[in-house]
Amino acid sequence: MINSHGISSSLSHLRELPIGLFDSGVGGMTVLRAMREQLPNESFLYLGDTARMPYGTKSVETVQKYALEAAAKLMERGIKLLVIACNTATAAALPLVREACPGIDVVGVVEPGAEAACRATRSGHIAVIATSGTIRGRAYEEAILRRMPDARISALACPLFVSMVEDGLLSGPLAEGLAARYLDAIFHDPREQGLEVPDTLVLACTHFPLLRKAIAHVVGEGVTLVDSAGNTAREVRQLLREKHLARGSGPSVGMPLCPGSVRFLTTDDVPRFTRMGELFLGIPIAPCTVEQVTL
Amino acid sequence: MINSHGISSSLSHLRELPIGLFDSGVGGMTVLRAMREQLPNESFLYLGDTARMPYGTKSVETVQKYALEAAAKLMERGIKLLVIACNTATAAALPLVREACPGIDVVGVVEPGAEAACRATRSGHIAVIATSGTIRGRAYEEAILRRMPDARISALACPLFVSMVEDGLLSGPLAEGLAARYLDAIFHDPREQGLEVPDTLVLACTHFPLLRKAIAHVVGEGVTLVDSAGNTAREVRQLLREKHLARGSGPSVGMPLCPGSVRFLTTDDVPRFTRMGELFLGIPIAPCTVEQVTL
Repeated sequence: MINSHGISSSLSHLRELPIGLFDSGVGGMTVLRAMREQLPNESFLYLGDTARMPYGTKSVETVQKYALEAAAKLMERGIKLLVIACNTATAAALPLVREACPGIDVVGVVEPGAEAACRATRSGHIAVIATSGTIRGRAYEEAILRRMPDARISALACPLFVSMVEDGLLSGPLAEGLAARYLDAIFHDPREQGLEVPDTLVLACTHFPLLRKAIAHVVGEGVTLVDSAGNTAREVRQLLREKHLARGSGPSVGMPLCPGSVRFLTTDDVPRFTRMGELFLGIPIAPCTVEQVTL
Repeated sequence: MINSHGISSSLSHLRELPIGLFDSGVGGMTVLRAMREQLPNESFLYLGDTARMPYGTKSVETVQKYALEAAAKLMERGIKLLVIACNTATAAALPLVREACPGIDVVGVVEPGAEAACRATRSGHIAVIATSGTIRGRAYEEAILRRMPDARISALACPLFVSMVEDGLLSGPLAEGLAARYLDAIFHDPREQGLEVPDTLVLACTHFPLLRKAIAHVVGEGVTLVDSAGNTAREVRQLLREKHLARGSGPSVGMPLCPGSVRFLTTDDVPRFTRMGELFLGIPIAPCTVEQVTL
């Protein structure tokens, strides 16, 4: 079906749909934040599975089940592209979610994070910190080694970091002490022994950028900290352009969502979601933009 | 129906059934541990909802839904008494679970914990530390004030304690630093100002007894630490005796479960459950005693 502008009407319709994102909770809002900055004409629909968070401590099978349910809910609402804004869910379920979402692109955060790391490193020695689930799945290691087969990778699970962020323990001696408890084995101890340490550290969990200052203090100078958010937004922008799905790149059919607008779905209660979400998104979240749903 | 001993056969049958317990994860095993000690003739069926843990950071409505599903699963398997071995779930859902389980007694951990606190205090000034959900629900405060109307209560959420225990951070300067971050406001700071501090501290989350040493170090001498586990086991023993449901108190009809045996149900994968559970239960858990179920 062709409309008066000679553009397929289904493509025009699709173009006006929001970009969908999901995460176990609110951590994915660090990705949403980067996307809002880089894609100011787009609208977004973000689902946080707060009733079952976190994903990072759970088995691959359970995370796959949850990720498929979250993706199905967003597909049902109508989205033009899906971002798995959660490292654990990307590592566990990206191919499955792609299969379950025919007709739209599905972007994870692991490849963009690996890409950022490979660009940043000079020595080829890269450290990856993430949840237990992400580390166990080795998805980051594989993604880095595909780009840089001779890279040396130190991977480490830092499960307490997620709770620290959610409890607001972001900086100061205690936050640094906890960061050191994990990171000294990769940075401080080898340095003491005169060994080479990684020159790049991937913050491979969407919560971790909020601990950037404490982590930077512990790993010391000369280590570049990278995360997935900026690169994921760039990849999405590129994909939308290639597929002629970027808003403003063709005639609009006047869908109700405003450019730049964000709507939220949460599986636990709304006040909890807005309170925690604002910390990650960096702007207030109006409760009327949040809807509680069941997965 | 009366059997050859003149005892109703349904009562004999019921007597041989296990005691059911559920928790969001493995923390409830501190309660199971006390019950195994005090009720060596009984068998137990423990359900840990590890795929959706923790409950303590979630809304009352979500915790109620999860608690009802866990109780239904245990009822379906056949139990003679149900223990909600989770403070958050007891505080949020005890009356609802009682309604949903007609014909058997349902015991929570809040009343036994409050009872222990009221017995221990001399000054009537009691501190309660728990998850955010338990503190917000004020169930402990109400249970203490029912027993001791002039009690003064300082209640405090310590959400990070759960993750610390699950990450194995149980003692040492960092654990004490984190404990002080929460507890100094109730103990250290008032002492500095010459004010009276609580003489009793209720560890009102099943995870917290594993931090007992670090917590005791921070609150200082003269403060008695109490938890629910021992008192819950005593209440169950008493109830089983009153209802003639204690094993060994009447003729057995030869049900398959052995005295002292424990079987487990978990909603996430088995290896994760056994690994974490052993930390709390204090004995090895054979994988063949654990079954993965869906709620």
